[in-house]
Amino acid sequence: MDYFEWLSYKDLEYRDGILYFANMNTIEIAEKYGTPIYIINEKMIRKRYRELKDMLNSVYKKNRIHFAVKSNTNLAVLKILSSEGSFFDCSSTGEIYTCLKSGIPSDRIIYTGNMFTDNDFEFAVKQDILVNLDSYSQLERLTKIYDKIEKKKNLISFRFNPEFGAGHHPYTITAGKEIKFGILEHQVIKAYSKAKELGFTKFGIHQHIGSGIIKANDYEMPAQKFLNIIEKIAEELGIQFEFVDFGGGLGIPYYPETDPLDLNRYSDIVFKRFKESVENGEIGEPYLFIEPGRYISAESSILLTQVNTIKDNGFKLFAGIDAGFNTLLRPTLYGSYHHIIVCEKRGKQEDLKYDVVGPICESGDVLGKERVLPKLSEGDYLAILDVGAYGFTMSSSYNSRPRAAELLINDGNIYKIRNEETFDDLVKAQIIPKHLKEKKSYRG
Amino acid sequence: MDYFEWLSYKDLEYRDGILYFANMNTIEIAEKYGTPIYIINEKMIRKRYRELKDMLNSVYKKNRIHFAVKSNTNLAVLKILSSEGSFFDCSSTGEIYTCLKSGIPSDRIIYTGNMFTDNDFEFAVKQDILVNLDSYSQLERLTKIYDKIEKKKNLISFRFNPEFGAGHHPYTITAGKEIKFGILEHQVIKAYSKAKELGFTKFGIHQHIGSGIIKANDYEMPAQKFLNIIEKIAEELGIQFEFVDFGGGLGIPYYPETDPLDLNRYSDIVFKRFKESVENGEIGEPYLFIEPGRYISAESSILLTQVNTIKDNGFKLFAGIDAGFNTLLRPTLYGSYHHIIVCEKRGKQEDLKYDVVGPICESGDVLGKERVLPKLSEGDYLAILDVGAYGFTMSSSYNSRPRAAELLINDGNIYKIRNEETFDDLVKAQIIPKHLKEKKSYRG
Repeated sequence: MDYFEWLSYKDLEYRDGILYFANMNTIEIAEKYGTPIYIINEKMIRKRYRELKDMLNSVYKKNRIHFAVKSNTNLAVLKILSSEGSFFDCSSTGEIYTCLKSGIPSDRIIYTGNMFTDNDFEFAVKQDILVNLDSYSQLERLTKIYDKIEKKKNLISFRFNPEFGAGHHPYTITAGKEIKFGILEHQVIKAYSKAKELGFTKFGIHQHIGSGIIKANDYEMPAQKFLNIIEKIAEELGIQFEFVDFGGGLGIPYYPETDPLDLNRYSDIVFKRFKESVENGEIGEPYLFIEPGRYISAESSILLTQVNTIKDNGFKLFAGIDAGFNTLLRPTLYGSYHHIIVCEKRGKQEDLKYDVVGPICESGDVLGKERVLPKLSEGDYLAILDVGAYGFTMSSSYNSRPRAAELLINDGNIYKIRNEETFDDLVKAQIIPKHLKEKKSYRG
Repeated sequence: MDYFEWLSYKDLEYRDGILYFANMNTIEIAEKYGTPIYIINEKMIRKRYRELKDMLNSVYKKNRIHFAVKSNTNLAVLKILSSEGSFFDCSSTGEIYTCLKSGIPSDRIIYTGNMFTDNDFEFAVKQDILVNLDSYSQLERLTKIYDKIEKKKNLISFRFNPEFGAGHHPYTITAGKEIKFGILEHQVIKAYSKAKELGFTKFGIHQHIGSGIIKANDYEMPAQKFLNIIEKIAEELGIQFEFVDFGGGLGIPYYPETDPLDLNRYSDIVFKRFKESVENGEIGEPYLFIEPGRYISAESSILLTQVNTIKDNGFKLFAGIDAGFNTLLRPTLYGSYHHIIVCEKRGKQEDLKYDVVGPICESGDVLGKERVLPKLSEGDYLAILDVGAYGFTMSSSYNSRPRAAELLINDGNIYKIRNEETFDDLVKAQIIPKHLKEKKSYRG
């Protein structure tokens, strides 16, 4: 698609030189609510969810989408997806708490953690949340928790590590021998037979190969291996799975030159043979789960930020903005690309190349390296795109910078869904011991 | 120094196999207060501060240490340093707020920000905080703020970028043409003459080349260049600086094989020629400032964490702990090394090699790669060392994991100086819009 199609695909367009997001004037929003600020487009969340749901429904009716809550933990986002009929995948008890808080019933949640503590297990079992185990040794610990609180053991799942990974950065490739996640092939039969022995009666299986995958072909080898394992377990242990969870990892086009993930191709590669196995009666008739996060949430949000300093050091141009890696960590942590555009195009401006940098006291605080933008002035607003996944959730108050506010746009209305932190929030959990409260007598 | 000297240098020792930190039993602390938890040793903060102060006093009496608040923003830490007579360097208005909150007078604070907003300037000028400018274009904006609120312009400082950087990671090397910080040589005369023209009457100068510098020699070239510039400004503009700020960057030995920074050598390299210039009457008699953060705070703290999962995937051993890159970001962000040790040595245990990994749902959540440790069991406690600088301050609630508590140890007493976050803290700033509160009707 061309550049303006690509923007429009993300519900962005210029009208008389002003950037509109979800039909709303971004300059007006920035001026009214201040910057830096995250803005979420409700319609886009629904749209991306429905694209996936329609794709799944066209292949295999018995399906569920479990939204990967870690990508965006906003109560409003969870409510929106809940109203669409979504299920949820949580990586921690805090995420489960957040889902429950937003009114999601416990039977719509899977807990795909790793490095579970006993407290994690107890929390999940008490709340009747399905646990998706990451390691063989955790099985006995989980069983003890069931016994301790006298709950009936029922459904259990393991995360299988297919040893083929993919993703946008080594940190988010989540399969392979060297990687902490899941159970490798040579241990998987042992894990399920042990689970049977310990009294579990129903079973699921899960894999997740990585994050930000934009080429459907990357799913091919892991999906094949996954189905081989499922058939092997069915054959050797007589287990017919209640569900088969293909994980997430579905990427989005962060670069204007990138085409969106081809959902038809993804569907062919990942679900075609699954469907054949079901139709051949080899693996029963399990639910098909997927766990997308980024695909649903990333394009729903932009981060508005203001340029405060234009710096020409004689060698390089810097546009200093009020958002830093405290606000959006991905560029600094992974070297991720987020497209950056101006909120106002003013007639004929020459294009210049800027490093778009934040206010954090580290030279790694670069949100966009060597970006060609219309000549900027101090006071201009910029929009950083595709920040709805792993945006606010990874933010911190580093350099004592309070975390940003969040807005939701729906049908021409703007709702403040998260208040910005205050300076007082930075210190209020602290307690000064009595001996340090005494009047100081300077030594130096 | 040998390994046990190195531990003792950080106030750590084993007594009957139990790790003691600041004379306190780490297992008892972990069991009483829970994990993950940060523990700060008051004595160590005072000790490292005094080492630097004594070194400076022996060279040049008219000196001040400005603690780099960004390394550790705890009110208790600021109080401790305040009682030692320290001054403070802030990188943001939030840090200034925190200093004022802990009772530090505004004339003991320098504001070395970058990418200042007008609001930042207004906050600083109203509070009578000295601003250390990072860019030429900021000078006129700052002047406007002075005029707007009718304050008398007095002292101003610029950050000089000497184009020689050093440090533990490219992100923390803070000098060079490609880097956002400071004013390069070819613009520095222009900056000070403009400042004079705009009505500033007193001047300071500052440079900071990077962070985590452990070889004193790395300071040699930048310090020489800095003095050349100072002499040039004195000569060309007749400016006698009120202060010369040599910045920070002083590193600590994170690895057992590393020797501490040689303070005598550092002093010789950085201050000897400065003192000569003063004695020769070339640059007046300015205050000498340094801005150490890490050197004072890093070794004051350990992070206690519990092993919950031992995972042998047949190829690799993983020790899964309850601290992740949400708790301590440096290993994941910079690949930083933090030494990890067991809190209990039990007789003859074989040594094994572990990846020490956290619970975050990313494969980059590795706190220690291929660490040789006595054979671990689930439930064991570990101490992650040297986390007092850029530890808690960089932490986040990613994966909806509440931030850790902090303890202070002093004279055999333990004080809780920060309460752990709760699940409720994760959601309480959020507001659910009315249209999402309505009873849901599932579409799917």
